[in-house]
Amino acid sequence: MRAAVLRNDEMIVDDVPDLVPGPGQVLLETVACGICGSDLHCARHARAFTAAARASGMSLFDFDPDRDLVMGHEFSARVLEYGPDPDGTVARRLEPGTFVVAHPMVRQGKRACSVGYHNDFPGAYAQRVVVDAGGLLPIPDGTDPVHAALTEPLAVGLHAVNQSSAVEAGSAIVIGCGPVGIAVITALRLQGVGMIVAADFSPIRRRFAETMGASVVVDPRELPAVDAWRQAGGRGPAVIFEAVGVPGIIATTMRSAPSRSELVVVGVCMEPDTFEPTIAISRQLTVRFVLGWNGAEFAASLDGIASGRIDVAPLITGRVDVEGTPGAFATLADPEAHVKIVVQPNGPVA
Amino acid sequence: MRAAVLRNDEMIVDDVPDLVPGPGQVLLETVACGICGSDLHCARHARAFTAAARASGMSLFDFDPDRDLVMGHEFSARVLEYGPDPDGTVARRLEPGTFVVAHPMVRQGKRACSVGYHNDFPGAYAQRVVVDAGGLLPIPDGTDPVHAALTEPLAVGLHAVNQSSAVEAGSAIVIGCGPVGIAVITALRLQGVGMIVAADFSPIRRRFAETMGASVVVDPRELPAVDAWRQAGGRGPAVIFEAVGVPGIIATTMRSAPSRSELVVVGVCMEPDTFEPTIAISRQLTVRFVLGWNGAEFAASLDGIASGRIDVAPLITGRVDVEGTPGAFATLADPEAHVKIVVQPNGPVA
Repeated sequence: MRAAVLRNDEMIVDDVPDLVPGPGQVLLETVACGICGSDLHCARHARAFTAAARASGMSLFDFDPDRDLVMGHEFSARVLEYGPDPDGTVARRLEPGTFVVAHPMVRQGKRACSVGYHNDFPGAYAQRVVVDAGGLLPIPDGTDPVHAALTEPLAVGLHAVNQSSAVEAGSAIVIGCGPVGIAVITALRLQGVGMIVAADFSPIRRRFAETMGASVVVDPRELPAVDAWRQAGGRGPAVIFEAVGVPGIIATTMRSAPSRSELVVVGVCMEPDTFEPTIAISRQLTVRFVLGWNGAEFAASLDGIASGRIDVAPLITGRVDVEGTPGAFATLADPEAHVKIVVQPNGPVA
Repeated sequence: MRAAVLRNDEMIVDDVPDLVPGPGQVLLETVACGICGSDLHCARHARAFTAAARASGMSLFDFDPDRDLVMGHEFSARVLEYGPDPDGTVARRLEPGTFVVAHPMVRQGKRACSVGYHNDFPGAYAQRVVVDAGGLLPIPDGTDPVHAALTEPLAVGLHAVNQSSAVEAGSAIVIGCGPVGIAVITALRLQGVGMIVAADFSPIRRRFAETMGASVVVDPRELPAVDAWRQAGGRGPAVIFEAVGVPGIIATTMRSAPSRSELVVVGVCMEPDTFEPTIAISRQLTVRFVLGWNGAEFAASLDGIASGRIDVAPLITGRVDVEGTPGAFATLADPEAHVKIVVQPNGPVA
């Protein structure tokens, strides 16, 4: 099958071996796979990425950068074929051809492996992908399966919101309106948070933030996000999502945070970072570091898309086939023009 | 009156002007004032201390290091004389001679000033001290007023515990058994937390931790605190109090923390600090920075001491008169031998 491969630190397209589903697994035909910021980072800095992951015990991102890596973990697909089920662990078998989203995971004994960040479990920048059968969710009829590919990134935003006090607070500040910040804004709306202040340097990103439901969007050089939040009626502690993930942003955010605020770190900074404890202490800040999602959040995310409560169509800003994947990665090096480019390795849905 | 004065970066004893209580204030005769770790730090690094405080908006510690500073904010006292009360704000007047503890605060308009960290509001390393009358609490009969001087530091521990999930968790780990760590351990016991694992390099401090109610005490060079907690039956996320307050301890604690743990930062590190976001993110840690106490916690702390539910006697490891204050500061430069030295500027209680 054709796949976009990270080989010797370069994104290329090549034929790779066909996949055979193992026990408890299922073979899928990829419909659409979103390009994730982590994938971009990994393609540019594979060695540093996996070294940092290994050093910090992020075993989900532990791969050998000297071997081929097929990334892609935000996908929708169609069921092709179930593997054997000697232990009777597959509770429900979906008909071949069913449109699905899937947890991008394969269990190996007690260890969960990330499909798309493991040399032996290629991701969905390929015509086919294998996952554990237990992680499949059928896409409801009438839902565009390309839109459903945004289930995973939206679940990341939903998890961040669920771990925060934003719903009780009724308002939130989102620093950074890249794909992660946009997912947080979308999830805040889905969870009924009425007042959302979003900040980004880029006018294009600010427009996306507005489209997805931010009440107020600011260029932080002109108006700091916390000031905008206060102007919009924010009082007392704030719930602030940090979705930038570069060194220094946590310290900067702390410096502007109202007393007793909650800082939710969704951006993934891969380098050591420095902050001033006296600021965090004098303001009595709480910092929540969050990652990933759980099964309920993944399902709620699909339901939000399928029910029409979230319109993800504006987020899909580009579509390429598998041969176009390296070019899409290059395009996304300028992150402003796009939220989500999806790869459709088997072409448009028939 | 006689007072221990920080003058030109040196602790000396001198006569300072007598105090006159202003509107809404009360003049007290000091019984006992505990020497606090922050005071030690301030005496050694006054300029860096107040510069860091100012930079981080900790207005409570904002003083002029070129002027005299009389520190001391952990005290018990006797009522001498109320100031005028033109606005009728003093709800309750205690009889002269009543033993009290007091919030070490004076309000100036909307601004709260720390008695003991303000050039114009000398603290209780002096024969007399002035505070706002609203912050007085009478010490119940039968309670040693010297013991009651530990109300304030214990309230700091109680606040940290109340801000944490330790009570729900039923167990906690305390890193560092200096005065702050000991206050946390004492407060954990007071709040009914059954399993407390405490870690410190110093055998003397470990003994104090045991005396105050730690279930397990370890030298972290021999057995990491988290390992000891697991051996004692700890499972899942941990509640970890960081009571060391030096650069690097937050990063070290994060590296050992179980997934989804809560790290409560009670130690005050005055310098910038570095940590690895990937570790905090991959473990989904929550970090709570806490400071101070509220009125209810201050009252609960006094009640814990007065009711006998806490025996603070072992914590008072030294007593000096006001002339002995500089010597006590020097002694505490070797922090191991003492938990709390109290200054009794008017001699022992008659």
